[in-house]
Amino acid sequence: MAIEIYWGSGSPYSWRVLLALEYKRLAYDSHLLQFSKQEHKSPQLLRMNPRGRVPVLKDGDYVVFESLACLLYLDRKYPDYPLFGTSAEEAGTIMRVICEYQAYAEHFVTQIVSAVFLDQLDQQAEEVTKAMHIVGGEARTIEGRLSKSDWLVGEQPSAADLTVFPGIMLLRRAMEKRETGDLRSRFLPMELTYPAIARWIERVEHLPGYDRSYPPHWRDTLHRS
Amino acid sequence: MAIEIYWGSGSPYSWRVLLALEYKRLAYDSHLLQFSKQEHKSPQLLRMNPRGRVPVLKDGDYVVFESLACLLYLDRKYPDYPLFGTSAEEAGTIMRVICEYQAYAEHFVTQIVSAVFLDQLDQQAEEVTKAMHIVGGEARTIEGRLSKSDWLVGEQPSAADLTVFPGIMLLRRAMEKRETGDLRSRFLPMELTYPAIARWIERVEHLPGYDRSYPPHWRDTLHRS
Repeated sequence: MAIEIYWGSGSPYSWRVLLALEYKRLAYDSHLLQFSKQEHKSPQLLRMNPRGRVPVLKDGDYVVFESLACLLYLDRKYPDYPLFGTSAEEAGTIMRVICEYQAYAEHFVTQIVSAVFLDQLDQQAEEVTKAMHIVGGEARTIEGRLSKSDWLVGEQPSAADLTVFPGIMLLRRAMEKRETGDLRSRFLPMELTYPAIARWIERVEHLPGYDRSYPPHWRDTLHRS
Repeated sequence: MAIEIYWGSGSPYSWRVLLALEYKRLAYDSHLLQFSKQEHKSPQLLRMNPRGRVPVLKDGDYVVFESLACLLYLDRKYPDYPLFGTSAEEAGTIMRVICEYQAYAEHFVTQIVSAVFLDQLDQQAEEVTKAMHIVGGEARTIEGRLSKSDWLVGEQPSAADLTVFPGIMLLRRAMEKRETGDLRSRFLPMELTYPAIARWIERVEHLPGYDRSYPPHWRDTLHRS
């Protein structure tokens, strides 16, 4: 039976798993859910994930959710094109970089992105300024890693790249909104502010199957603008 | 060369890795750092982890930190007594339960525990009440799993048990402080409020080497009282 993925456009967590499926050259059935129609809260979805969150990965009878768990499952089940390295040491460092992103950056990225897309920048000015300071520090650490290496850990793409990438893309997209004003110049153009990250984004964009993972409604927006 | 662990008493993140080392019957050199003396911010520690956080695991020349990364490293390096199951499916579910704990419970456990130990219950009454509500819901989910199985995932202890256990012990310890008042009766005695979790705590306490992992200053406090 084929692998199935239930996902939402623009969900960074979904994007990680799509990138992993593509990177591993796995065939899968894609079920794009419409958040606006509450399809992620349908009875079918809630049977698979009672929290009603995406992505949900189904492989035969087996169901798993939470993006990092999906990545670990895929890597154990389908070891070709490894996501967690080829040694215990690489696996540890890849997971360390993921944990650091989740513990010290992700919450603040979400805070900034939410404030931008919900038009709350003025109301949340203080929190957003603080969040930008923290995210800037974490971005400089990532910039440092990528100025010495093509990928976040080791010589190949890994779960670390696939975990961090969608968050950075979401942040960049938020910054590109005209209303972000002052915030914008701290991150854009990334070729100047974070040149190693900018080159890494291009490398990820050239991974096989990348286009199929790209959030469809982002593309629509581009076409409309 | 021996495995070395740098840790702090009462740090739930440290406790996870100590439990893992003991569960895997690995020999290790233990470096207990005194937070009060800022030993986790010493130059030696900052060279290993620039964030100055514990635990830090050193195995020969290899250094890893962030508790989940330490667990994954140990499991790949020393596969006996597996922490992430014996199949891809078990690995995925173990990681899923860990991610769910981290995403939906851990922050609120920390919030409650901090408010208790910093004597901020009155000032933070609203946040703590909300946090207790969320933690209660997550605890009921865990209670449900443990009422059907001895361990959180599968037939053996796993990284899921070792990750969640220190958080629950910290919460129980906070609730045992007399000043928690009303909060207390929602969690204690756990034999009545969460009987399956209470039995699971006893099972963890009977794992080999458990006593060596127990936060030393918790024991001291017991002796003093």
